[in-house]
Amino acid sequence: MTHYPLTGTTAALSLLWFAPSPAIAQQLIDSDKHQIRTDKIGETLEHPWGLALMPDGRFLVTERNSGRLLLGRMEGGAFQPVSGVPDTFRFKGPTGRSQGGLFHVALHPDFAENQMVYVSFSQPSDEGAGTAVARGRLSENGDNARLEGVEVVYTMNKHDSSGLHFGGRFAFHPETKNLYVTVGERRNISRAQDAEDHAGSVIRVRDDGSVPDDNPFVAKADHDDKIHSIGHRNPQGLAFHPETNELWATDHGPEGGDEINRLKAGLNYGWPFQTAGKDYSGAPIGGGKEVEGMEAPVHVFDKTVGPAGVAFYRGDMFPEWRGDMLIGGLASESLERIRIADNKVVEHESIPIGRRIRDVQTAPDGSVLLLTEHSDGEILRLTRAGAPASTGTGAADKAR
Amino acid sequence: MTHYPLTGTTAALSLLWFAPSPAIAQQLIDSDKHQIRTDKIGETLEHPWGLALMPDGRFLVTERNSGRLLLGRMEGGAFQPVSGVPDTFRFKGPTGRSQGGLFHVALHPDFAENQMVYVSFSQPSDEGAGTAVARGRLSENGDNARLEGVEVVYTMNKHDSSGLHFGGRFAFHPETKNLYVTVGERRNISRAQDAEDHAGSVIRVRDDGSVPDDNPFVAKADHDDKIHSIGHRNPQGLAFHPETNELWATDHGPEGGDEINRLKAGLNYGWPFQTAGKDYSGAPIGGGKEVEGMEAPVHVFDKTVGPAGVAFYRGDMFPEWRGDMLIGGLASESLERIRIADNKVVEHESIPIGRRIRDVQTAPDGSVLLLTEHSDGEILRLTRAGAPASTGTGAADKAR
Repeated sequence: MTHYPLTGTTAALSLLWFAPSPAIAQQLIDSDKHQIRTDKIGETLEHPWGLALMPDGRFLVTERNSGRLLLGRMEGGAFQPVSGVPDTFRFKGPTGRSQGGLFHVALHPDFAENQMVYVSFSQPSDEGAGTAVARGRLSENGDNARLEGVEVVYTMNKHDSSGLHFGGRFAFHPETKNLYVTVGERRNISRAQDAEDHAGSVIRVRDDGSVPDDNPFVAKADHDDKIHSIGHRNPQGLAFHPETNELWATDHGPEGGDEINRLKAGLNYGWPFQTAGKDYSGAPIGGGKEVEGMEAPVHVFDKTVGPAGVAFYRGDMFPEWRGDMLIGGLASESLERIRIADNKVVEHESIPIGRRIRDVQTAPDGSVLLLTEHSDGEILRLTRAGAPASTGTGAADKAR
Repeated sequence: MTHYPLTGTTAALSLLWFAPSPAIAQQLIDSDKHQIRTDKIGETLEHPWGLALMPDGRFLVTERNSGRLLLGRMEGGAFQPVSGVPDTFRFKGPTGRSQGGLFHVALHPDFAENQMVYVSFSQPSDEGAGTAVARGRLSENGDNARLEGVEVVYTMNKHDSSGLHFGGRFAFHPETKNLYVTVGERRNISRAQDAEDHAGSVIRVRDDGSVPDDNPFVAKADHDDKIHSIGHRNPQGLAFHPETNELWATDHGPEGGDEINRLKAGLNYGWPFQTAGKDYSGAPIGGGKEVEGMEAPVHVFDKTVGPAGVAFYRGDMFPEWRGDMLIGGLASESLERIRIADNKVVEHESIPIGRRIRDVQTAPDGSVLLLTEHSDGEILRLTRAGAPASTGTGAADKAR
């Protein structure tokens, strides 16, 4: 979600993005700064999770529950299955209580040269499952698309039988091309503070899964070499800031504890010691909002958002959003627009979409793409409708 | 574990219990009150979980990981598999991180008449798994033993994909013959306080699974009819006091919070609000040891015990233990002997066994049977060796 290559061909290709897409579902939304039109792109999807834009204007999208990877076009139409995706650990029951399945998809930064596609998933094993990342070369032959030479480049070091809190978002550093992977604490709060256990961590490996020499815990006893930061709960949004290359993440907190964090190497983000939230039962957890030796979040949402995918907006279509962080809200069913200055949130607007939002991407033409997390989920394309709304009016009162 | 019928034939049959068992493993232990000899009974077992003594001197024993139910004899020798046991949800991996599988086994109080055997297990379903109890009629034909007409009489109302904290112990009320089942909170602390969710509860149903009219929540909105008490974490020991018919339970607490509770209808035992423990990571949980409106435990262990099966001692072989509660300690690898007077623990002795103890039973001859929770687990029979040690000496200093 949070990274795709801006190649030299972007300017030319971006014309494709203006091609009108057939409006299967459409709505107009008055947000604080812009009037927005939403259009559904292509077929209905079963719990879509991750979206990767391709240099030729197509995209790859994952379905969490079916485990399918699909190729689609912005103009809509039928999706084309991509074979070769690893088997995933999931339960297919009607309630969908397991959070396992196929998660994120992204292109290697050098995709134009190497055609490498990365997917994250809940990898089944004798011990249950663990968050993992695999890669394969996208090969197309007529209507057949497949991943070839698929290999698992990363898997959690301790699998277990929980079907919850996999994390599963990943991003490539724009320069080093290192792979950063979020791993949830598997709904076991005891695991997030263990610096030898990948659960509740953000992982940093090279694009082939090997350990970079400068990882923060390489020389530390009782710390795992692959871990970049610890003390996370279930981070599902991860993005490099396009100008500063800082790494930002969202984390699903307990009740009232949803967070935005700026991730730095070797730090402890506190869960379950430091949290602004309570357990969903209402029971207190942890020792408060600020605990010594732990990194405080940049922001804690005062209402439950269920923050998932995150992208920094950097297009021309919504000029008043430029540089803002766009976060998909599952529980809030809104696109959360966040402006950050000096590591503080200075503006927050909840743009109501009315659907649970799993991932957010910005397209080369400046439109915004959302995945909605439903059994009848969809790709929604947000474009600008009409002139920008004036700021400082009634609509802006929603900003907090 | 905690209940078997004392039929009229017990006195005669009890002679069988004195038959010497082949000593495959044997040790002598000096406890505060008695010198104890331990002998291994029969074959090695893979993670045995529950043990039911039969009126003819044989026993049934479960293996959690393999899902096997086995028939054995106190004289030792090979175990005989009993077919017809329901499939269980489990992972067979080397680390055994899932706690799912086949759990407890007990005979119906009228077993002599109806041959009904009950087993608890993690029942697989589309949503994952849930704690369940099934029953079937034990039928033997030569060397073939099987459960016939097997039916699930109880299953959790909300299954999920966690492999942890199933609870899974059950006991029959000696008079009403109602079935009480412990259900863990599935390693999801948010579920224990929800009185509509069986997770984190003790269940009370009739022996056919129907709801007794006098269940505490029958007439209460937003409460489930089958629930007897809520606020439990992962109770794995359950026993009726042989004289008072009071129901007692052990509960695996978080770090430092292992509990003994006396269970009364309709009460809230506090997890995760009321707990003396911390999370295993060290993080605080809850609001303290005593929370208004919640029932305090009778006892909190000051060291981690990992309390599993529990039995009240009522034999003649260890006269100084009469009436005491014997608790199998997993983490402590000890048999915890507890004396309770006026609902307070007045004596506590940890008898070191050196093996993780999953279940405890008292046999008609007064010997004590332990199941050890290992991949090379065993049934250990504790008998008295030599004269009772004098009390009030150095050994008694261990009592707290």
